[in-house]
Formats: sequence, structure tokens, C-alpha cells
Amino acid sequence: MIIIMEKTATIENIKAVENILSEHGFRAILHEGDVHTVIDALGDKTTLSPDRLEAMEGVSHVKLIRQPYRLASRDRKPEDTVIEFDNGVKIGGANRPVYIVGPCSVDEDYDGLLQVATAAKEMGCQFLRGGAFKPRTSPYDFDGLGEKALQYLASAREATDLLVVTELMDSSDMDLVCDYADVIQIGARNMQNFRLLKAIGRCNKPVILKRGPANTIKEFLLAAEHIMYSGNEKVILCERGIRSFDDSFTRNLLDISAVPVIKKYSHLPIIIDPSHGTGQRYLIEPMSKAGLVAGADGIMVEVHYNPAKALSDGKQSLSIPQFREVFSKLNSLVDTLHLERKSVISNLD
Amino acid sequence: MIIIMEKTATIENIKAVENILSEHGFRAILHEGDVHTVIDALGDKTTLSPDRLEAMEGVSHVKLIRQPYRLASRDRKPEDTVIEFDNGVKIGGANRPVYIVGPCSVDEDYDGLLQVATAAKEMGCQFLRGGAFKPRTSPYDFDGLGEKALQYLASAREATDLLVVTELMDSSDMDLVCDYADVIQIGARNMQNFRLLKAIGRCNKPVILKRGPANTIKEFLLAAEHIMYSGNEKVILCERGIRSFDDSFTRNLLDISAVPVIKKYSHLPIIIDPSHGTGQRYLIEPMSKAGLVAGADGIMVEVHYNPAKALSDGKQSLSIPQFREVFSKLNSLVDTLHLERKSVISNLD
Amino acid sequence: MIIIMEKTATIENIKAVENILSEHGFRAILHEGDVHTVIDALGDKTTLSPDRLEAMEGVSHVKLIRQPYRLASRDRKPEDTVIEFDNGVKIGGANRPVYIVGPCSVDEDYDGLLQVATAAKEMGCQFLRGGAFKPRTSPYDFDGLGEKALQYLASAREATDLLVVTELMDSSDMDLVCDYADVIQIGARNMQNFRLLKAIGRCNKPVILKRGPANTIKEFLLAAEHIMYSGNEKVILCERGIRSFDDSFTRNLLDISAVPVIKKYSHLPIIIDPSHGTGQRYLIEPMSKAGLVAGADGIMVEVHYNPAKALSDGKQSLSIPQFREVFSKLNSLVDTLHLERKSVISNLD
Amino acid sequence: MIIIMEKTATIENIKAVENILSEHGFRAILHEGDVHTVIDALGDKTTLSPDRLEAMEGVSHVKLIRQPYRLASRDRKPEDTVIEFDNGVKIGGANRPVYIVGPCSVDEDYDGLLQVATAAKEMGCQFLRGGAFKPRTSPYDFDGLGEKALQYLASAREATDLLVVTELMDSSDMDLVCDYADVIQIGARNMQNFRLLKAIGRCNKPVILKRGPANTIKEFLLAAEHIMYSGNEKVILCERGIRSFDDSFTRNLLDISAVPVIKKYSHLPIIIDPSHGTGQRYLIEPMSKAGLVAGADGIMVEVHYNPAKALSDGKQSLSIPQFREVFSKLNSLVDTLHLERKSVISNLD
Repeated sequence: MIIIMEKTATIENIKAVENILSEHGFRAILHEGDVHTVIDALGDKTTLSPDRLEAMEGVSHVKLIRQPYRLASRDRKPEDTVIEFDNGVKIGGANRPVYIVGPCSVDEDYDGLLQVATAAKEMGCQFLRGGAFKPRTSPYDFDGLGEKALQYLASAREATDLLVVTELMDSSDMDLVCDYADVIQIGARNMQNFRLLKAIGRCNKPVILKRGPANTIKEFLLAAEHIMYSGNEKVILCERGIRSFDDSFTRNLLDISAVPVIKKYSHLPIIIDPSHGTGQRYLIEPMSKAGLVAGADGIMVEVHYNPAKALSDGKQSLSIPQFREVFSKLNSLVDTLHLERKSVISNLD
Repeated sequence: MIIIMEKTATIENIKAVENILSEHGFRAILHEGDVHTVIDALGDKTTLSPDRLEAMEGVSHVKLIRQPYRLASRDRKPEDTVIEFDNGVKIGGANRPVYIVGPCSVDEDYDGLLQVATAAKEMGCQFLRGGAFKPRTSPYDFDGLGEKALQYLASAREATDLLVVTELMDSSDMDLVCDYADVIQIGARNMQNFRLLKAIGRCNKPVILKRGPANTIKEFLLAAEHIMYSGNEKVILCERGIRSFDDSFTRNLLDISAVPVIKKYSHLPIIIDPSHGTGQRYLIEPMSKAGLVAGADGIMVEVHYNPAKALSDGKQSLSIPQFREVFSKLNSLVDTLHLERKSVISNLD
Repeated sequence: MIIIMEKTATIENIKAVENILSEHGFRAILHEGDVHTVIDALGDKTTLSPDRLEAMEGVSHVKLIRQPYRLASRDRKPEDTVIEFDNGVKIGGANRPVYIVGPCSVDEDYDGLLQVATAAKEMGCQFLRGGAFKPRTSPYDFDGLGEKALQYLASAREATDLLVVTELMDSSDMDLVCDYADVIQIGARNMQNFRLLKAIGRCNKPVILKRGPANTIKEFLLAAEHIMYSGNEKVILCERGIRSFDDSFTRNLLDISAVPVIKKYSHLPIIIDPSHGTGQRYLIEPMSKAGLVAGADGIMVEVHYNPAKALSDGKQSLSIPQFREVFSKLNSLVDTLHLERKSVISNLD
Repeated sequence: MIIIMEKTATIENIKAVENILSEHGFRAILHEGDVHTVIDALGDKTTLSPDRLEAMEGVSHVKLIRQPYRLASRDRKPEDTVIEFDNGVKIGGANRPVYIVGPCSVDEDYDGLLQVATAAKEMGCQFLRGGAFKPRTSPYDFDGLGEKALQYLASAREATDLLVVTELMDSSDMDLVCDYADVIQIGARNMQNFRLLKAIGRCNKPVILKRGPANTIKEFLLAAEHIMYSGNEKVILCERGIRSFDDSFTRNLLDISAVPVIKKYSHLPIIIDPSHGTGQRYLIEPMSKAGLVAGADGIMVEVHYNPAKALSDGKQSLSIPQFREVFSKLNSLVDTLHLERKSVISNLD
């Protein structure tokens, strides 16, 4: 840490900082500039929070040299994390990018869900997604079928061998959701629901952690750190669009650069969600391609057997014929570019 | 609702929209422009979601005429909501703005907490705040004392007659927190934790709902709507700063204009939190004043008996002497301007 | 236009709106809802600004049905605009994406510039870029060599046959810059310098218009509309990153989705600038690829013969060997995917 | 400056940084951490840009200790700058806040302008504002009367003794605008039109510099630095609202906290513009009050003799009766609180 003192800091202020640093086992090196005094503090930041130093009299601000996440950091683990399932499916590293598709929320029509799952299997997808519990901005909107939806997903899994991805919204549903799902999803609005992040450690299933719409990459990696720190290292990051000042053409702004940035600083797999990321059906194909060539380990796309009857997110869902058309182009891109051998860590700094 | 069709929409597309509208009891009026066909739909939006219409073929987008919140809306209830406590304290309407002060998180030093509470009482504050469960961006930071903190707050209440405000982070702590608190706080990061919003209906205590750092005013009012719809109408809104592109001088950007905007469109009380809203001690006084003259029903400020020892948010906390100095100026402002008779609903449109 | 009246609007307010509409040749259709009265106005918006209606008593707000740009709109001109140069180079439509490379600013070392230009030619680039007049945030930074830089660029053009792109910052330099450049660049900070946009009509050279860091796509297309309206239809749009709340890993947030969005709504060519768009050398390759597969008509990248000696933007510039490495990969991507036959307008809506 | 090296930096990389620092007269102090090497560089940053260091091999990033503006900084000049006019009007320091009012753009009706000016004089305003050249997002909107407008403003000045404020959009209009205006305004979209900022040094008139809608406070102060550096130290800063993710209730987000932040770090006067800052007539009163109690040295408000006929910005303009009502309340606030003795520099850090 580097502690920058106020211009008006007194000798007592500086002494007080030195004392607290020394109490916590830091080595402090003082530099007196013509305006500010600057203190280099070398030691273990987990024992003394920068916040506490910033609150001291005479301290202007504290600058960190190292990133605050550790378990998620590539510094700690240079090789890519690969998550493997019992059926041999793998996410991350030099593996072929995975596809996760399905309706935003599961509705009463099981047959429709099965049609989607069957088509998904045919097009080479590995995962079926569907919401049983849905976060909705308005209390007047449909918020999910609950356990019935989980049963439908399990039946579709049996019929197709796809793995099931579904969202956990509250720690009280933990055991129920873990019973049915192969992968637990933490939604964007819950990315900083720290109690939920802690709880997820109790379930030994891989987690898809979606980036919050207004969260920085640092906060995103720190949320992954929460899950890993509570015992579950199988975290798959998901970029799903952030909030920008322009929402007239797209619902969110899909941050493609987050993919290579995260590849550089973390070993965790990262996928993208162009459905939520743009909110527009016509953008799914170009943005999926963009994410894949930028190094994404998978894509998650909403597919519904009848988008006009979808109880949520119809506008950003593909119908089954549209899905076939778009994914045959994605398959062709992945094959042509040999993305199963992708390696995107740049040697440029 | 107004449904704007794509330039390329077919007669069948338009018919399909008309049919679904008629099925749901809407009256549809067609306008054929030279480029787009536009359909006015008059009826009850709770029976047919705009999302569903937007997903139909040939539909470009849907524009809403009325706001989607109802219970929170001033259209439904023109007079200000006033929340009254057993000890006679009132929030909202033409009442004197209230003060809510205390440490970010309650720590082991009960005596320090009591010093803050005693000073608060002397300066005319009505509420003592303090965190028992703390959301922390990093898993390595202190996350609260739990029930012990609630007991400390209860003791300080007994000693001073201040009302207690504390945060609920997870629905599983609901009964515990309700037992101790006079007012439940929903933190900014949980503003769209819809399960928590629903749960809060079970507890018959007033709620302070903090605006999410990247949430619009419409989403803020819809979150209040969730709580009200689940049975608890005693919602106090709290503006606490939003995320902007500039965080070099302030941690968040305190949106003072949210106060008069919300006063115009909702009947609920609204307070501001300049500590989180700016992250800077020196901004607490000017921003508190700004919020008060703009019509806020109260302010919430972090006060700690020793900010340099605070386990969280020290930089934005006032020490007890600083608190006395700032609040005597605020008291003088409130007295001089007779803000106890504030009425801020403008007759300009 | 659709005019939504306030709940409190009087019959006189409504009559006044109807009168002004009729004076300007609009047809007005009234809908009285149970809360709001809504007026559909059919007519030519250029004769009556929505602003003026919004200022009238009793008017809540005005919603537009059609986009406010015309010349730039794909509705008016469904086929892609292709800009052709005397030497046969073409930008836009189904043509192979172009490459525009060179130093951020031209410095005293002509030989260095020539090395860049020679390498650019060898790698298949069509354009050499370089700044003669530089906008700099701080007055203490280098702001360009002026005419000398233009002469250097012209010499490099003679030596390599590359076309020259350079920025115009002030209308007073118009004739000078037009004399030397093949393409005039309007910088991001000048995107809404409307006098400059007007002036550019006097010069019959193609224009690269960069998107302002906080400008919406609508404002971007309206800025293009300004140039087209003043007589110059050869506008090339350039997405170069927008300002977001997260600047710890990237200088700006490169909005890849702007490419397919603009392709859908406008016929103008669009290129991307991953150097400014990210500010990081290691992101140039993945983001160039992402832009290309999303449909960009070209990319603009900073290349310097010695980035560590660059007087501006060294961190985001490629050295010549790095440039060769990255662009041989881009060439391979373009060849493998046959991007010279790109056609990205989706038939999904 | 503090230079943080990459984990992978070689001894040669570090040596190269030390060499360039020593060439430019910096003293370099090396700290080898267990992960990163960090170099403290003490010297004059104007001679060596951090950009250049960041571009060097092995450098991760550079952190600045001192702010990059000097002339605008309170470090250099602790006492408030007060700008005084020939007629005795003063802006800044402990002076009574000034009022700047008038129409967004001056139109053909001189009599209407005179009515506004007369009312302004009566209510204690010191300045009449009006646009002669208007930046407009769409080329189809009214863009100003030009010199005729300047003549109208001059006539109104003669009739009322108000000082005239008008916007300069292009350096070619410099002499014309300087001839007529008492204060030159630089619009928000031109805040980083560096050629214009330089040009303004040639005119010995005070300048109102508006903050760009997406510019940080640091960039704002650097833009002021540009003007001061080119010879004109009479800069009045104006906060006029920034772009946020929420524009459904307000056009921009008026950043009230910018007032006390700038007071702390700069000696320049700062005013606010609640008309552009919110875009809503009903917010002018509460936001003016908020700005004044937070320490603003003045407010700028749009007043039109007939907002419904205004050719621009009618929705955010006050009519003359509304203006009288709002400003009599503001006068009362200023009198009651003795804001003529305002002193807002907090002694808290």
C-alpha cells in the first residue's frame, strides 16, 4: 500500500500512521515530497484494511499495488481452471466453447421445453437453462413456477442428457435447487448478495456467477472470491451486459472486452450472455461471434418454443428455427477457426 | 400502451397483435402512418405484459403511457405518507426532518456505541443506526457481529430512547432482526433482491429502502411497490448515491434531484445518506444542507466514537465532536428556514 | 409524434396543442384515457419541434415514432454506402474490411513514420493515420507538430501509396488539412462541435466521424446527419469506446454492439478503434477480431516505431514487430472467414 | 509519480525506467516487493509525461500523487478568486451569489427579451444570458440568430445595466462575440474543444466554462487550466448536469457535490445551471436552493417571456411570472441564511 498524506498533515498524524503500520507488522518507508508526504507500507493487507488507514487524520488516500482478490487471480494459479462434469463435458482452458440454451423462465408447457431441449441437443449444446424462480422488476410480472419448473428441467435432462442450469435466488431454496441442478446460476442482481455467495459454498455444484449490471470487473472477481473463499472453487464467470447511458437500442451494453481482460487477470472460465447483454434477437448472432473470437469459454442464449408466448424476455429469445439457423453459423465459426484450441492470453502487456 | 409496428410488419402481424389485445380485454385503435403502423391499446396492463407484445413478430417496440407502479404513486394517493412511531416520532409530510445517526457497523466496544447514542440524543436525533450484518465487497473484510450487535443496539435504545435502525441482509435473519429493530433497512445492493422484498411484508416494521447504486428512479419505486404489494406500506425511501463515471473525488454521486422528483411522483417519505452518498467526511455538511432544502424528510449520517478505529467506512464517518459541530449547523438551518413546515411539491409542471 | 398530456391538463391546454398542430399542418387524433389524454400527431416534424410542444402548459411529454435522422437512415437508403477512392480502395458494403494504422501523433522522426508506413503497406493496410493537431486533456502535454506533420504524412504517402487520414480540430485549419489529407477525421471530443461538422461540408473529402465518449448512438447518427445535411455524404462512422463506470482495466469501453446496431439502422460504413477503445495493447488483437466478426468495415489501430518514445498514447500503440504479429492473425481471420463477403444485416427483428 | 512494474518485468526494464527518469532530472527510489517492483519518482512531471512511462516495456501503470492542474489548484492559491466587473458586480469568495437569467436562445422578438431583462433587474439579477449561436443535436433545429442576437443583448444591457453572457462556439466568432459580451460562455459540448480554450486567452473577458456532460471533475479543472495557461485567469466554472444511466425524469443529473468538491480543490468560483442540469421547470427551485446552500457562487436559469414559443429548451424555462415567484423564494433563502457571507471550505478532511 502507498499512503498519501494531506498537505496539512502534522508530524503527529504521520507518526500515528507509522505506529499502526508497525503494530500490524508492516514495514513503512517515508518519502517527504515538497507538497505531500508519502508512506510505502510493505506487509499483509488482510491484517489491516486500507479503509481504516484512510479514516485516520491527515491521510488523504491510500493506493493499492496488488489486486485485492487472490484465489481468483492468475498470479496465484497461472493455468486455466477447467471444470469437468461426470458426462465428460468441460468448460474452460483450451476446450471447445460450450453452449447453454433454453427459455428465460420455465412455463406450464413441458412439451415446449422438451422441443427446445431436443433441438439444443441436436445442435451440439451441452446445457439446458431455465428459470424456476425469476427476479422481476415489477411485482405484477410472472415470477416463476418454482419446484414444478425444476422437475420439468430434470425430465428434459433425462430425455436429452443435457446438463441443467438454473438460478438460485435465496439461500432458503439452496437444498431444493442443488437437488435438481447440475450448475447453479447466481443472477446479476444478486452478484453482491454476499449471504447467497457464502451459502453456495455448501453445495458442491459448479456456479455460473453473472456480473452485476453496474459492477466493475474488480467487484466481479471479488464476488467470485467470496464463493471460492467459502469453499467452492468451481466458478464460471458470465458477462451479461452492463448499464450504460444509452439504452435506446440495447437493453444493456455487452462488455466484450471483459472476456480478454478477465482471461489476463484470472484463471476462471468466462462465458457471455448476448440475450440479456443486448435484449435484441438480431444481435445474438454477431455478439456471440464477437465473444467467441475474443476468447469466451461459452455462450448462454435464450431459446423459446414460442417467443411470443414467453412469460418473460420474449423479445430477446430465439425461436427454435431461428436458434437452428444462428447456431449452425456459430458451429461453423468454431470449426473453421478451430476455437477448440483457443488460447487467448496475450503475451503483450 | 402504444404499440409501434416495424416498417416491414405484415397485415397478419398486425392482426395477431389486435387479436391478443382483444383476448385480454383491450380496446385497440389502429393508425396507419406512411412508415409505421401504430396501435393504441387501452386496457389493464396487469393482464398483458408489454414484454409479451414486444416479442411478437412485426412489433418494433411498445411505449407505456402510465407509470408501472401504482401503490407507490402519488396519482393513487395525493397526500404525503407519514409514518408514526409509538414514541410520537413522525417521518414524512410537513414534519421536521429526522436524523438517523450511528456507526456503519457495530463493533465490540459497547461503550463507544453508547457515547454516540448519547450525543445523538442531545443533538435532537430520533434514530440510532448500526450494522449487525454487513455486506462487504471483499471476503477479507469484517462482516458484522450478528446478534451481539443487535443486543448492543437494544441496550443503547433503552439508555437513550432512540429508535433502532439496522440492516436485514437475508430472509433467514428476518425474525431475529424484526425482534430487535424499530426500522428495518434494506441495503442498496439488495434493492432488487426480490425475495427479501417479499419477506419484509411479514414484519410489521417500517422499512428504509436504499436506492441501488445503478438503479433508476423507476426501478426504485418498483422495488418499493414490491414491498407494499406484499403487505407493508410503511416504506421510507433513501437516496444514497449512484455510480457515475467519476469516482476520483467521491465514492458515489449523491442524486439530490431524486428528492424533488420522488416527491412529485410518489407519496412516500424520502431521506438522503450523504455518508455513503459521497464517501467523504467534508461533504456531509454541504450535502445534508442541500438535501434538506430540496425537501428531504430526513438524513442518515455515519458517526463513530473513533473513526480511525472503525472496522468499516471510517473515512466517511464523523467523530463525536465533528458530529456535534455539523449537526448544530443543520439544526440552525432547519430552525431558520422552518423546514418543519416544508412542502416541496411544486405547482410547476 | 404522440403527445401525452398531464393528468391535470385542462380542456384549454388540449385545445392549444390541437391548434398549434393544425397551424403546422399536422393531423391530430385525440384519445381520452381514464388518466391521461393522448394526442396522435401525424405530419412533418421538421416544421414543428417536439421541444416546443413539450414546453406548452399541460403537456407531460412527447414521444417520437420515427427516428430524427433521415439522410443517415437505412429507411431512406436500404443499400450500404460504399466510399471509393481514386486508387480503387473501397470502404463499406461487401468489401474487405480496411486497415488504418499509424502513430497517434506525428513526431519529428520522419524516418520512424516511414518505417511504420512501409510495414503497413506490406501487411495490406490501405491507410496511414497520424495526428498533426492533437487534443490533449492537459495543457502541459504535447499537442502536435502542425503543418510539418502534414508534410511528413504526405511524403510517406508518396513513398507507399497509402491514403492519409488526419484529424481536423478547428474550422480555421480546414483548408490546410484538406490540402494534405485523403480522409478527414473528426475526433471524439468534437463529435458535437456543430460548427466543425458544418464546415466539413466545404471539403469534398471523406470524413471519419468518431463517436463521442458519452454520446448515444442516436446522437452519433445525428452528428453524421449534420455533416450530410451540409453537403458531404461520405461519412465513415468510428466506434472508439465510451465512458463507463469502470476504468481500472480499460481506458474506455469499446461498444462492439454499436457495429451491428448501426448496420441495422444506417447505411453508412462503420469501423472500430480498439486502441482508444481499450487503451491497452494486449486488447487490440481480441477486440479487432470481435469487431470484424460483428461486421465492422475496418479497424483503426495505433502503431509506433518506438511506443516508449511516443509523445502520446504509447501504452495503447503496437510496435512494428507487434503490429506484424497481430495483423498477420487478423489477415488470417479475414481470409478464413471470407469477411470480404460479409453481410451482417440480420433478418431477425 | 509512482511507477508500478509488471510482475514479469526484467532487470533491463527496470534499468530503462531508471535511466529515463534520471535523464529528466527525477530522483528514483526503488522498492522491490515480493510481487511487484515499485519506483518512486520525485521530480517535475511537466518534463516527462506519465503516458510515456506507461508505454515502456515492463511498466504496469503509473500513479500520480499530485493533481495535474496547477494554476486552477487551491494548493497554489489558497484564497478564493473573486472576479469583479466595472459596475461593481463580484463573483466568488464571500460575495452574495449572483443570478444569471435569460432565454436559451435569443429570437426575433426583442420586446420579449426586454421584458425578461427588466424583470431580471427587478428581482436583483446581475446578468442577462442569451444564445446567439446555438449547438443543436439535430441539424433540423433552430441554431441561433447570430450577430442580430448579440445586438439585441447589447440593447437590453443598455436598457437595464445587466451584464451580458453569451456563448462562443467557434474561434472564428471570437472577435465578434468579445465585442458584445461581458462574459463569454464555453458550452458543455465544447469543454474539451482545446483550440477554443486556447483562443479564449486572446479576449480579456471573464469566461463561464461549463462542465461537459461526461467529464470528470479532474478534466473540468484541466479545461480551466488550459484557459488560464493561455493567459486568461478569469474563469468561472459551471456545473450543468452530467449524463447518467437514468434520463426518464431528468435530462441530466445535476452534480451538487461538485460544488463543495471544487471549492476544496480549486480557488475558482463555481455556479450551477439547474435548467440544463435537470431539464425540468419544477426542479429549478429545489435544485437552485440545494446548490446555494452547498456553496455555489451563483445560479444560471433559463427564463423566457413565453416558454411555449421558445425555439429551444422551452420545457426547462421559467415564464416571467414563474421566474418572479421562484426568485423571490431564492432571495429570501439567501437573505435568511446570510449567504453573502458564505464560506464553505470545510476544515474536515
